[in-house]
Amino acid sequence: MSDKRIHLFDTTLRDGAQTQGVDFTVADKIAIAEALDRIGLDYVEGGWPGANPTDDSFFAEPPAFRNARFVAFGMTRRPGRSAENDPGLAALVQSRATAACLVGKTWDFHVDLALGIPLAENLELIRDSIAHMAARKDEALFDAEHFFDGWKANPGYALDCLKAAAEGGASWLVLCDTNGGTLPDEIRRIVGAVREALPEARLGIHCHNDTENAVASSLAAIEAGARQVQGTLNGLGERCGNANIVTLIATLALKTDWQTGVDAEALTHLTSLSRLLDERLNRPSRTDAAYVGERAFAHKGGLHVSAVEKDPRTYEHVPPESVGNRRHIVVSDQAGRSNILARLREIGVEVDPDDRRVGRLVEEVKRREFEGYAYDGAAASFELLARRELGEVPAYFELSRFRVMDDRRWNARGDLVTESEATVTVRIGAEEVMTVADGNGPVDALDKALRKALNPTYPILESMRLTDYKVRILTPQAGTEAVTRVMIESAGKSGRWTTVGVSPNVIDASFNALADAIVWKLYRAGVEPAA
Amino acid sequence: MSDKRIHLFDTTLRDGAQTQGVDFTVADKIAIAEALDRIGLDYVEGGWPGANPTDDSFFAEPPAFRNARFVAFGMTRRPGRSAENDPGLAALVQSRATAACLVGKTWDFHVDLALGIPLAENLELIRDSIAHMAARKDEALFDAEHFFDGWKANPGYALDCLKAAAEGGASWLVLCDTNGGTLPDEIRRIVGAVREALPEARLGIHCHNDTENAVASSLAAIEAGARQVQGTLNGLGERCGNANIVTLIATLALKTDWQTGVDAEALTHLTSLSRLLDERLNRPSRTDAAYVGERAFAHKGGLHVSAVEKDPRTYEHVPPESVGNRRHIVVSDQAGRSNILARLREIGVEVDPDDRRVGRLVEEVKRREFEGYAYDGAAASFELLARRELGEVPAYFELSRFRVMDDRRWNARGDLVTESEATVTVRIGAEEVMTVADGNGPVDALDKALRKALNPTYPILESMRLTDYKVRILTPQAGTEAVTRVMIESAGKSGRWTTVGVSPNVIDASFNALADAIVWKLYRAGVEPAA
Repeated sequence: MSDKRIHLFDTTLRDGAQTQGVDFTVADKIAIAEALDRIGLDYVEGGWPGANPTDDSFFAEPPAFRNARFVAFGMTRRPGRSAENDPGLAALVQSRATAACLVGKTWDFHVDLALGIPLAENLELIRDSIAHMAARKDEALFDAEHFFDGWKANPGYALDCLKAAAEGGASWLVLCDTNGGTLPDEIRRIVGAVREALPEARLGIHCHNDTENAVASSLAAIEAGARQVQGTLNGLGERCGNANIVTLIATLALKTDWQTGVDAEALTHLTSLSRLLDERLNRPSRTDAAYVGERAFAHKGGLHVSAVEKDPRTYEHVPPESVGNRRHIVVSDQAGRSNILARLREIGVEVDPDDRRVGRLVEEVKRREFEGYAYDGAAASFELLARRELGEVPAYFELSRFRVMDDRRWNARGDLVTESEATVTVRIGAEEVMTVADGNGPVDALDKALRKALNPTYPILESMRLTDYKVRILTPQAGTEAVTRVMIESAGKSGRWTTVGVSPNVIDASFNALADAIVWKLYRAGVEPAA
Repeated sequence: MSDKRIHLFDTTLRDGAQTQGVDFTVADKIAIAEALDRIGLDYVEGGWPGANPTDDSFFAEPPAFRNARFVAFGMTRRPGRSAENDPGLAALVQSRATAACLVGKTWDFHVDLALGIPLAENLELIRDSIAHMAARKDEALFDAEHFFDGWKANPGYALDCLKAAAEGGASWLVLCDTNGGTLPDEIRRIVGAVREALPEARLGIHCHNDTENAVASSLAAIEAGARQVQGTLNGLGERCGNANIVTLIATLALKTDWQTGVDAEALTHLTSLSRLLDERLNRPSRTDAAYVGERAFAHKGGLHVSAVEKDPRTYEHVPPESVGNRRHIVVSDQAGRSNILARLREIGVEVDPDDRRVGRLVEEVKRREFEGYAYDGAAASFELLARRELGEVPAYFELSRFRVMDDRRWNARGDLVTESEATVTVRIGAEEVMTVADGNGPVDALDKALRKALNPTYPILESMRLTDYKVRILTPQAGTEAVTRVMIESAGKSGRWTTVGVSPNVIDASFNALADAIVWKLYRAGVEPAA
């Protein structure tokens, strides 16, 4: 194997799962593990068998891996019992993982304080436990917990711990900066010293982001001799997170001559891999994420936009498509004519730059953003605004009135129940239609009543559903009234789209966003309005 | 001045203001500039006079700075006119800034493509413009745009640009990695080479986070000879953001022997400085931010929690209080007894670890988190849950019924208006009270009606207001109904507190969170329930 080969080890499903607010289901774990395998990871750590029911089920029926080795995590045996009789190690052996990664103490302070055993006994724990697993799995890796703090406190002992793991037959010695406090230069120096002391060992690096240097420290460790790097998708992890393996994959591929199992074709799936994690966690993706964020290749200032249109290399460090991302021209109140024109081209609207309607659109965007609209994240509403200004959007329906009622009361069985009911009156072509529906709250009821009115005329709406609903109260400026901004994400067969509504009243703002979502769907599908 | 002194230059209000979705008011700029000055920044860049009305007003009446130099940003003069006749430079001169920072091209490719002038002419632009400003302000700094890309393409020319600025009298030559694509090792090497070529020059560094290395690259540049570092609060900035000056301040202070203008006392205000920016932007703070994030010193896993209780150094790289942050024991579905006990101590509840009520509370937290409650971010609701389990929370009121109506219709003047009205019936002590109120949407109306019922009995509630309202629809698991989670932030004289409500109906969930917010306030104030 080439000396330039770096082995990628993902611990999203183990160390990432430790994060506040993160709770993977077995289905989540399977979907993420399969995607990691597909893109070319070398190791996928799935969790800690024996620690909780989710991990037990996941390790009992793991997905079929094509390339990656499936790793179970555990601790070195407890003091006072043999590796054979340790219940934690037994759970690892019984799991269907093909490799085991055992964490052990290497900082003398921790051996003393947390384990409360003599330093020499901890070396036995490491040696025994690794040997036990190495005999029962394809390989046993050693995670050297607190290695850098341990080295700084007592380098001889920290090294003895690594030697004990090597004697036990560890395939990799992974140096962990568990508390995340070591700076890249120190990481480089210490990894270099270990490399010199143990020239035969294969070294790995495991960093945390407590000083915002996890990626840099991982790269420094590679330069100093580490050949395995551990990280998590989007840097998920306790406290400030782990090293972001998404950023590491892109940087190694596009900016260094190190080689990984992720080839150029696989790299174009990196953005969707990153988004998959957030979808599974049901949380918004970081728009400013390196390489894969929605804003990573966004251009806002007018000067930047015109330069990028001449040659993208002027303001882009790598081509967005190399990582499956795309360029994004931002509409905003800094928007000049050139931004709006670029954005119109992006959505496929060809218009003469000198057309007076472009000037009107720029003014309208500015006016609405002043009111509280935000088109940055609501592309469908921007498209409707632009196409309406160009006179392209027909009147599919017109609202005459709605009324929503929410009622919380004790029912006949003595339970406190809440019911929401909406009545909608709309004009569709020549006809006036009145419908009523109930729902989980006022917006859901409104949505249902409106669709009930529209579906018979526009059956294409049946496949559409509301997938996300966000409310933001905008801080009132001195002297103006507070307003509410609602963003709605909808999904249909053709993908997802986002619309925005603003009003002093949250129900009103919701209705506006809802109406935009429906009109966008009808317009995009090329539906003719009812006569 | 000591050779270990690093000058801190903040560009939140200029480069940070370029960010998608960011729109500072003059009041925001004043508040942020004052806080930056107070903590000990050397330079505060306020914006770009002449570019927009906000920056014009801000530069016409700047705050009184105690330490910091107030910097105006601009470009080198346009080709074909003298510095004296350049309107951009004139706006800088007229501004009340005490220093000017001028950006100029240093990448031959950009001179050719974006300016379209001969390389030699660009050197004239730089020399003239810097000389013009240096004669009119206390100092003129030079921002070398695209310096690292320029150096890689044509090192001789990039250096000539720096020399032209030095000849013009630039106080600092700031090397900018404008596209953010250069890795720390390359930054170190190039800064070192410039240092050698221009030993007399004072060098600065300005990095972007497109490879997640902006902090590491800034530190590498300092090691290689830069003595000024530019960054923004919380890494605010276009695309993936700028170097995070909050992280740089903490790292330089706590982990290196470099000196800055931020002393140990000022450092304890770092967390509140970071939060100030997000408050002004009305957005949630990143909980995983290095040093200052709410989760930066959070401990979740049971083993970690018990070790931290023995000695915080086991899992904390610096003391949280050194940067004004605090330790946080997380309640979550991984919560064991030791987490819950630690969290109870944190909120001041003393309870015997073997008390059976602790076991019941652990079960109740797990059951509710399974339903969709999230206590991670809703400390007030957790406290109420715990204290209710311990029998400490009196029944201040009991809801009998509510009804909310939202009506959108054409009024007599021909406008489409929306009205929300809520009717509430509550039992307070022996009395049954019925009230009605209107509001900006159903939750606002409910809040007002409820307070109208409660205020006469509990006048302390008059000072309380709802400051944030967040809605999240939780993805339905197969076979279960979708639920809505509402988080409400309230504010009163004693600070801010967050509560959570969950229900299939969003109005119901909102009411539950609202009721918790009110009860918490009454309980914390030690109010006696009505008889």
